[in-house]
Amino acid sequence: MKTYSIALLPGDGIGNPVTEAAWDVLQATAKTSGFSLEGTAFPWSCDFYKQTGAMMPTDGIETLSRFDAILLGAVGWPAEVPDSVSLHGLLLPIRKAFTQYANIRPHRLLPGVSGPLKSGAFDILCIRENTEGEYSGAGGRIHQGTADEVAVETSIFTRKGVERILRFAFEQARMRRGKLASVTKSNAQKYSMVFWDEITRRLAAEYPDVEVTSYHIDAMAARMVMAPESLDVVVASNLFGDILTDLGAAIQGGLGFAASANINPDRSAPSMFEPVHGSAPDIAHLGIANPIAAIWSGAMMLEHLGETPAAARMVSAIEATTKAGIGIIPGRDKTETIARAVLERLL
Amino acid sequence: MKTYSIALLPGDGIGNPVTEAAWDVLQATAKTSGFSLEGTAFPWSCDFYKQTGAMMPTDGIETLSRFDAILLGAVGWPAEVPDSVSLHGLLLPIRKAFTQYANIRPHRLLPGVSGPLKSGAFDILCIRENTEGEYSGAGGRIHQGTADEVAVETSIFTRKGVERILRFAFEQARMRRGKLASVTKSNAQKYSMVFWDEITRRLAAEYPDVEVTSYHIDAMAARMVMAPESLDVVVASNLFGDILTDLGAAIQGGLGFAASANINPDRSAPSMFEPVHGSAPDIAHLGIANPIAAIWSGAMMLEHLGETPAAARMVSAIEATTKAGIGIIPGRDKTETIARAVLERLL
Ligand SMILES: CC(C)[C@H](C(=O)O)[C@@H](O)C(=O)O
Ligand SMILES: CC(C)[C@H](C(=O)O)[C@@H](O)C(=O)O
Repeated sequence: MKTYSIALLPGDGIGNPVTEAAWDVLQATAKTSGFSLEGTAFPWSCDFYKQTGAMMPTDGIETLSRFDAILLGAVGWPAEVPDSVSLHGLLLPIRKAFTQYANIRPHRLLPGVSGPLKSGAFDILCIRENTEGEYSGAGGRIHQGTADEVAVETSIFTRKGVERILRFAFEQARMRRGKLASVTKSNAQKYSMVFWDEITRRLAAEYPDVEVTSYHIDAMAARMVMAPESLDVVVASNLFGDILTDLGAAIQGGLGFAASANINPDRSAPSMFEPVHGSAPDIAHLGIANPIAAIWSGAMMLEHLGETPAAARMVSAIEATTKAGIGIIPGRDKTETIARAVLERLL
Repeated sequence: MKTYSIALLPGDGIGNPVTEAAWDVLQATAKTSGFSLEGTAFPWSCDFYKQTGAMMPTDGIETLSRFDAILLGAVGWPAEVPDSVSLHGLLLPIRKAFTQYANIRPHRLLPGVSGPLKSGAFDILCIRENTEGEYSGAGGRIHQGTADEVAVETSIFTRKGVERILRFAFEQARMRRGKLASVTKSNAQKYSMVFWDEITRRLAAEYPDVEVTSYHIDAMAARMVMAPESLDVVVASNLFGDILTDLGAAIQGGLGFAASANINPDRSAPSMFEPVHGSAPDIAHLGIANPIAAIWSGAMMLEHLGETPAAARMVSAIEATTKAGIGIIPGRDKTETIARAVLERLL
């Protein structure tokens, strides 16, 4: 029997219960799908940091590299460990070390879920560049603490980085409804965004079957709210994708429904699957975290591993659950109740 | 009688009819308010560029500096003149030359207007830094055209620039409901945004009557859609403010309702008032541009000039118009019809 080795990184706060729920559903799915999942859990988190002084051991990346995929819960506990330590010590290094350059996030309303918009029907796949751009980490400050202080933050875009994410997006659009929206701000950022637009135009010639349109980020943010049904695949830089996917989460009813995959398309290293939500310190001890985003992320993991029918079964079970009214009102149902409901609906 | 000299820059496309409509309403308001407005129109636009090779004459800024305020329509005609020429040749130089560092944009639903959100009641004032940050224009490209090409775009934040916009925002919050949301992305941009957060925290001590909260831009975008009623004054950098104000325009029913002011708070140079929308080449010849955003921007101009009761009369006339169902459905009513309806309702 085919066996996949999965690294489990529940992380902090609600990362723990939602990863447990996702893992239960994944195991149940595997059992009836003819493959098996072997999980190894790592306690890397802010607690781990407080005990050891690091978010993960020095050989953490090497350890993870031996797995077929990584399932992550959430990282961060700002009251005790600054985000600059926790995120930059665990989440972001994994994305970069494993060249998980495509962060993909599906945005649609699950059955029974009523989002904040009056209009209902949309089905968007956001693809966010995940390794460079505005989150390159380059910059500095001079005359610190004085009236003359200046801070600079430099976005770095490489042709390789931009080309590969755009190619990935064109391929995804081709497999969906053939429409690609590329998001920049080239009327105000003349170097990075003009560069991105140029590469988009050049690649468009190679994908005549994909209809590609360039939007400015401000116009796209408005469009996601005013006409989300007009969108199919949306591709954007690290920052713009970050913003648009939280907006996507909002229109799909909240972070409890927002799944994501950090994909290494070349399969030279493991990909990582995680709900978009954070560790939610405020509700972490109430037992009411919605595990749907984590379970959906687990389904994306199976899809990536090539177990497409099993992934589809998981998504169907999620849909049957929300359709039955379970897990659709934030904070109403217990994490366990929702997880059990999904398990019961696995066909 | 007090007389204000106003520079009129209708610009391109629908900038023309909406500025005309706003000017008519402003004149009618002045007539019954005990002051007069003397307008001088300048044809600076993409047409002007095609005739002269520049978006404005070399002494354009000097000419404008003699006015009490500037009323602008819209700039740009991308099919004929690249945005990099039109915007960087007219709109952006004015904002910078006159140190119009505070771009303020009110977001609320006018009576009768039904936005895309199910929830209705919100009243947000977005304040965008308007002179530096992500739109500093610094950057470059190397190895151009090769596989190794790299583009960099550098955001530059100065203490002076950040402090003054935050102070302005604290003052506005104090005059409203006392709540300020400061928007950054300090968990991913460690120099510029951490700098902004530090200054916010320091200034907060000087404004104990204002409740200030820091949000990440992604979370704020989601909040504007999921819980806009929780927001009062929102302050953000040039880019983040740009995005949030288009989102604000979306939730208030569209760009036809989004007014803005580019304010020089020190009054060392004229301020500029403009609808958020662009020149809209696609509908420019249909006569259906909604002048409400431009008229509202005109009211913001009167407010800035100190004519507060007159500004309030204009806003009331706009509200009575939309309440009567006029101008609330995009594309249904003619520009003139809406303008006339506002004029008739001026009390
Ligand atoms: C926590 C943060 C660094 C992260 C990001 O911006 O990548 C998060 O917002 C996300 O969207 O995954
Ligand atoms: C046209 C563009 C340069 C401008 C900006 O980004 O400032 C516009 O989007 C705005 O919001 O006023």
